[in-house]
Amino acid sequence: MTATDETPGELRAADPVALTAELIRCPSVTPEEGGALALLEGLLAPAGFACHRISRGGVENLYARWGTGGPVFGFAGHTDVVPVGDVADWTADPFGGMEADGVLWGRGATDMKSGVGAFVAAALDFVGSTPPEGSVALLITGDEEGPAEHGTRAILDWMAENGEQLDFCLVGEPTSVTRLGDVVKIGRRGSMTAELTVFGTQGHTAYPDRATNPLPALAAACLRLARTPIDLGSTHFQASTLALTSIDTGNPASNVIPASATARFNIRFNDLHEPESIRIWVDQQIEEALVGTGCNAEIDWTVSGESFLTSPGPLTDIVVDAITDRLLERPALTTGGGTSDARFIKDHCPVVEFGLVGDTMHQVDERVPVADIRRLAELYGDILHRFFGR
Amino acid sequence: MTATDETPGELRAADPVALTAELIRCPSVTPEEGGALALLEGLLAPAGFACHRISRGGVENLYARWGTGGPVFGFAGHTDVVPVGDVADWTADPFGGMEADGVLWGRGATDMKSGVGAFVAAALDFVGSTPPEGSVALLITGDEEGPAEHGTRAILDWMAENGEQLDFCLVGEPTSVTRLGDVVKIGRRGSMTAELTVFGTQGHTAYPDRATNPLPALAAACLRLARTPIDLGSTHFQASTLALTSIDTGNPASNVIPASATARFNIRFNDLHEPESIRIWVDQQIEEALVGTGCNAEIDWTVSGESFLTSPGPLTDIVVDAITDRLLERPALTTGGGTSDARFIKDHCPVVEFGLVGDTMHQVDERVPVADIRRLAELYGDILHRFFGR
Repeated sequence: MTATDETPGELRAADPVALTAELIRCPSVTPEEGGALALLEGLLAPAGFACHRISRGGVENLYARWGTGGPVFGFAGHTDVVPVGDVADWTADPFGGMEADGVLWGRGATDMKSGVGAFVAAALDFVGSTPPEGSVALLITGDEEGPAEHGTRAILDWMAENGEQLDFCLVGEPTSVTRLGDVVKIGRRGSMTAELTVFGTQGHTAYPDRATNPLPALAAACLRLARTPIDLGSTHFQASTLALTSIDTGNPASNVIPASATARFNIRFNDLHEPESIRIWVDQQIEEALVGTGCNAEIDWTVSGESFLTSPGPLTDIVVDAITDRLLERPALTTGGGTSDARFIKDHCPVVEFGLVGDTMHQVDERVPVADIRRLAELYGDILHRFFGR
Repeated sequence: MTATDETPGELRAADPVALTAELIRCPSVTPEEGGALALLEGLLAPAGFACHRISRGGVENLYARWGTGGPVFGFAGHTDVVPVGDVADWTADPFGGMEADGVLWGRGATDMKSGVGAFVAAALDFVGSTPPEGSVALLITGDEEGPAEHGTRAILDWMAENGEQLDFCLVGEPTSVTRLGDVVKIGRRGSMTAELTVFGTQGHTAYPDRATNPLPALAAACLRLARTPIDLGSTHFQASTLALTSIDTGNPASNVIPASATARFNIRFNDLHEPESIRIWVDQQIEEALVGTGCNAEIDWTVSGESFLTSPGPLTDIVVDAITDRLLERPALTTGGGTSDARFIKDHCPVVEFGLVGDTMHQVDERVPVADIRRLAELYGDILHRFFGR
């Protein structure tokens, strides 16, 4: 479990639970490397992985590849974790890696040092025991939880510059919902955030007819945006959603009608849409809501990710069949939930996300059954075997 | 024009323009007395007015009465003024009382040192030249523009404690709109302010179905409140109005659905309503807007004034006829606009408001044609003559 474990026999036996515990002991709160990537590099390099540390904008990332030919199977994940909050609220030291009664405790136990521990152990075991014809590549970033500007994107940029390509990538984020293996994600919705400002004319509340109050117009626009369906969903996606997050005016005077007010909202959109079609839809709703109000509107957009889908087929079947064979239950293929670094990888190769149950992620007392980590490592091993036809 | 003008002949000749200019020279920004009440007391006491200074909460007020019997005619007004802002923006010294080309300049020129100057001059002239059977009382406060906690209310409290009553009161606030005498106010709408908070359940924008977003519910409530008529007006009042003044959430996170949000609005209501009926109406709108949202609402109220009406009749006719006879145009009787101290006086006796055109009130370069001050003093004199049947 350390860089001194150098014999092939010991590497084949790399224990995913012990490795996860060791990773939890690295205080790698974004953007701190915390020793986590050094720990992994110390294991992978002696086993024949060519390791490249990619540093950009104060973030450390690791690209490690075993083999030189194709096809190339990639695992992707992150060793950074969100802050622990008040340590006093935790049952166990969040950086202690304590195991008790079959449960491993600590920040990153589910999101996602366990996923990294499982795929690194599986990859070491696979290349050590049954060297494939092709390559196994690991993309491990130190910033997925933060701005993610210099994380997986930096690895992918470096790969493009150096002629490194993947044929398929599995992101080890926690995707399971109630039990390991019940959900595999084959796509993600896109995410856009808007700031809508409605402008009227200031005035005195005693003479509302002499003012143009922007607030009823903004309320009408918000209500229409919140209550009009964007679409009804698609084959692999639920309906796109719009969530208002803030409406603000900042007018302290109870007798003054304000000149303007602002609303912000976040849209998660499916593969029926691109950012431009969402913009057009929103503009239409606002225009219709503002008819007759005498108000004008301005809108600023931030696109944090486009939607993508890895259509079900031979590559997703590898993952689905491996899970079905070992767990005797077929996983659901979904596209719900938040964003992950799969949104960057999808521009480079087909990508699927599969990992543990994430119910305690980002919470106090984050923890995971050790049996699930072992089972996940076995499943990742099965997937490698199936991918390389072994 | 000073306390040394002691002969009846000179008092009868008290000049309303010179008196207004002298009052403007008193820097009586609320709550400073600034010498204004002392100036008036120095004029009134020698002319036979029993003067009482009523001091409460750092505010100076003056109650002055000529005569001991009934009926009692009251004039009410204030000598305090709003701040001048940046003196450099003024054409003339705001406390200089400069007269040029028939215009008197300075803070309070319209609101309402001119009104006080006119009714004090008219009262002095009237009691000096044609002593009435009955009394003339003057209620002059040093805080109408500020919180008004210790202004006219303090005078009225003192009067109640000392058995002083009015039969009719004329407030000399600037009520005219485009030319002197076009508008007399016979009532005011009430004013209430509400803070409405809608509570939902916080959540992540990627999973809006797991949260209860308070913002669409608040938008629906605001829209319903803003767009549903409260009433259609009454004989002497325009329709009650509701003006949204602020909607605020304060949620900086673009991926978080907030737990609550707040709206504030101001209602100006007519004589069809009392505060309680407004509360009931608002509660109904909110309840109906929130049906099916899963959100709860709380509302905090501040009542700043109830509506009142001095029904047209013999007392209002005195004012209307005096204006019509002298200006050859009948004034409109209205109840619109903001609040004044009439809202306190209405609990004691019938009250009417009549004064100058107030178009420059509270502005830089506040000013008034001196001819209007003289004409107003003449009209106030006519009203006294008519009231006492002289």
